[in-house]
Amino acid sequence: MGKGKAKRGIPSKSEEFNAWYPFIVEAADLVDKRYPIKGMDVWRPYGWKAMKLIDRLTHRQMEITDHEEVNFPLLIPENLLEKENLLVARLKKAREENIDPDELRLEEEEAGFKKEVYWVKHAGENNLDIPMFLRPTSETAMYTMFPLWIRSHADLPLKIYQMVNTFRYETKQTRSFIRVREIHFFEAHTAHASEEDATKQIEEDLEIVDKIMHDLCLPVIKAKRPTWDTFPGAWYTIGIDAVMPNGRTLQVASCHHYRDQWAKAFDIKFETESDGHKFCHQTTYGMSERLLGAVVGVHGDDDGLIMPPAIAPIQVVMIPIRAENNPEIMITIKKMKEQLEEAGIRCKIDDRDLRPGSKYYDWEIKGVPLRIELGPRDLESKAAMMAPRIGDKESFMIDNTVEFVQKSLEEIAEQLRKNSQNHFDSILRPMPSFTIENGKLNSEESIDDGCIYEMPFSGTDAHAEIIEKSTGLGFLGEATSSYDEERTCPFTNQKTTKRVLLSRSY
Amino acid sequence: MGKGKAKRGIPSKSEEFNAWYPFIVEAADLVDKRYPIKGMDVWRPYGWKAMKLIDRLTHRQMEITDHEEVNFPLLIPENLLEKENLLVARLKKAREENIDPDELRLEEEEAGFKKEVYWVKHAGENNLDIPMFLRPTSETAMYTMFPLWIRSHADLPLKIYQMVNTFRYETKQTRSFIRVREIHFFEAHTAHASEEDATKQIEEDLEIVDKIMHDLCLPVIKAKRPTWDTFPGAWYTIGIDAVMPNGRTLQVASCHHYRDQWAKAFDIKFETESDGHKFCHQTTYGMSERLLGAVVGVHGDDDGLIMPPAIAPIQVVMIPIRAENNPEIMITIKKMKEQLEEAGIRCKIDDRDLRPGSKYYDWEIKGVPLRIELGPRDLESKAAMMAPRIGDKESFMIDNTVEFVQKSLEEIAEQLRKNSQNHFDSILRPMPSFTIENGKLNSEESIDDGCIYEMPFSGTDAHAEIIEKSTGLGFLGEATSSYDEERTCPFTNQKTTKRVLLSRSY
Repeated sequence: MGKGKAKRGIPSKSEEFNAWYPFIVEAADLVDKRYPIKGMDVWRPYGWKAMKLIDRLTHRQMEITDHEEVNFPLLIPENLLEKENLLVARLKKAREENIDPDELRLEEEEAGFKKEVYWVKHAGENNLDIPMFLRPTSETAMYTMFPLWIRSHADLPLKIYQMVNTFRYETKQTRSFIRVREIHFFEAHTAHASEEDATKQIEEDLEIVDKIMHDLCLPVIKAKRPTWDTFPGAWYTIGIDAVMPNGRTLQVASCHHYRDQWAKAFDIKFETESDGHKFCHQTTYGMSERLLGAVVGVHGDDDGLIMPPAIAPIQVVMIPIRAENNPEIMITIKKMKEQLEEAGIRCKIDDRDLRPGSKYYDWEIKGVPLRIELGPRDLESKAAMMAPRIGDKESFMIDNTVEFVQKSLEEIAEQLRKNSQNHFDSILRPMPSFTIENGKLNSEESIDDGCIYEMPFSGTDAHAEIIEKSTGLGFLGEATSSYDEERTCPFTNQKTTKRVLLSRSY
Repeated sequence: MGKGKAKRGIPSKSEEFNAWYPFIVEAADLVDKRYPIKGMDVWRPYGWKAMKLIDRLTHRQMEITDHEEVNFPLLIPENLLEKENLLVARLKKAREENIDPDELRLEEEEAGFKKEVYWVKHAGENNLDIPMFLRPTSETAMYTMFPLWIRSHADLPLKIYQMVNTFRYETKQTRSFIRVREIHFFEAHTAHASEEDATKQIEEDLEIVDKIMHDLCLPVIKAKRPTWDTFPGAWYTIGIDAVMPNGRTLQVASCHHYRDQWAKAFDIKFETESDGHKFCHQTTYGMSERLLGAVVGVHGDDDGLIMPPAIAPIQVVMIPIRAENNPEIMITIKKMKEQLEEAGIRCKIDDRDLRPGSKYYDWEIKGVPLRIELGPRDLESKAAMMAPRIGDKESFMIDNTVEFVQKSLEEIAEQLRKNSQNHFDSILRPMPSFTIENGKLNSEESIDDGCIYEMPFSGTDAHAEIIEKSTGLGFLGEATSSYDEERTCPFTNQKTTKRVLLSRSY
């Protein structure tokens, strides 16, 4: 599969990110976009391995936090939506009784949702009695089963998750990992005895996000989405955004607190210890292949990908130099590989019949964190050469291979974290001061396309709308990390520690 | 999720297998069949874990044999079938020129295939220009990409595989794992420089089958399918059948040698070192969740499942006895668990507030291979009690827990292999002697519904048809293991070592 095809002519990442990204995902053999359906790429072995290593991080966190893995059918019968429609009706009533106007969103969304699904109405030569659709997400499928599984308080909390393919009929321009029509998706769904327990679950989710982002070396924004950007049926949504090199944010994960809204629609009740039956409080936590898209976009450079060690399909590539006349070189390099593999490090020996330079080029484009070179002179000095994908070449004693590689991989991860945090910090700006005239925002400073903005905010949705319309920036919402000291909201002139973030987003 | 709900009233496996099987897959929490689409079950955590452990065996074998994992889109545009239709046309021509009449099957199959797929003709509110279908298997999707990946001999062999959901619009009665509409599927696809290399691949596949079946403790029949049961487009098919307790065979895997038939249809060529361009020779190797169906059916008993240790989600369940007033018991049991987990053994402590008998019942139904009980008296004697799911209770010294458990798990696996082989041997019969009158088979002995039959055979398809129609048995084909000595074919009276197997099958 494309062995040895070195691709020259990588677009400059800093100058043409929008050309670099689609080029690199194919040049690094992550996916093949030539499959004849737009937005449905073929995962090639290297890309799929990276994705599965990301999944492994998630599996590990799910295990630690006692989530159990399930697997639900892909197809959902249309008539199951009736319950969702009832939810809409209930929320309508809430509006009429002026209980919580926020909850009205569901109505519009429900129609939007139908616009985004693939329909299965035929099977073989038959028209199906009940049309079915390919899951865009699994609330409806799962919550149909939950009442069968949850009977008493002893069944709670219910914490399950699955990793599956989901589908969205995207009409916008598609981009590998970022906007696709078949999505490699993770979704955790939980049910709890109380709103408070569900809130704690969201906190646990955000801790998991932190751990995974640490391994991916990605700084992220965690922000409580504004009302109009809250997931339908959710009480609130925390969006988790990575920041791409062009300053655009990319939502890579989200957590939703459903309170008991879905439980009421799907009749998900439990018998309490003393108090009769109550509805469950639910949460969901989703992530997708966008995580890989963020890794590609944030860490790569003009030479190609840079894989964070935790998810690098190959952590160390080992290149024998002038080994033809010196069998000792391959013997030594194989011994080093064995030791590294025993220590759980993913290695590959590249003994192809190619010039070393071509090999270096290939593995640089694929973002392998460490390259080890071993030639005749190294053997003599019992040392080998280490060339990290970022940083300087260094010689090390062969006897210390494992320790040296482990240390170097940690250093690379740390360096990636620093680099991406520095980039993040460099494009995060305070919102320029402004005045508002005729519902429009005026400022002497202009909004920079490649930046994200923060400001203290205690205003209303209407204020948010003004700023969105005037600047072209979107409200990411209120960051989970607030200001240390109170600041003045430019709309209300009130003091607040609330920090909202604004950006252009994918 | 159904914690502690012990289900009584298991049907007798030996007397009512057809009631036992559907009962047990739900009672043991493998799947939930109450999802509102027939033949699409929800995988519950315990069942999914077992399936993923089977997958892990497969992943391991794929790694050893240098297959790379990919992931293809689920949807296939209908117009890609044009190439498959060309293949049909080519085979038609072959018939007209009397090259190989076997190859005519494809025509009928192609129509059959269209009868079995789910169609996606609508997305959102649009009719799609080109209808798409959910993959029933991935030849068409993959072989569309192969010409882009295979250019020269250096790209061969290409060995890839994927584990995905496939779909079949079953109109027959569905059964969990055995006949479902969404199938958890494994498929390996390879391309080679020569027919001989492809043949070697089939041999490698069959060795992998042996290794996996060893771990699943399943005896299987490997037989070269008769012409009419060969996969469309294949030169030959080796079917791998497990034998269920009712004597019915269940095809759990298959390997297909495609020669260069598909390569010609999809233009999959490579540049040889010296000899211009040649078409590739291809193979496929498929397995599915039927493996789990066979494990359930073959090993279970009147008390529930019996999980082969290699794929048991829980290999050892540990039950503290009267631990309320003796904290030392939980301390000791946790220490034992840590030691076992360090040794890679999957354990669970059941400290639910239930009578021990109820716990035993739950874990027996789930087929956990080993149960360890630890009570106050055991502590005194520094021993614990081991109750294997099959075999006798035994006491062991706590200091030797890991060694004892490892040995016991091996013994259980060996016992399961013996039991299933004994059952297999007991229902494998030589075909009763018969005469043929008016194209019908006459015999003094009757055909036993619960048996499989073998006989020497050097006859024709017409002979095979006579025997199928007269006995109701199906031709599994020529077993890969032949007779040691020549025997006489009852149809041709010729001597042959060819051994054909006949059975009723799922």
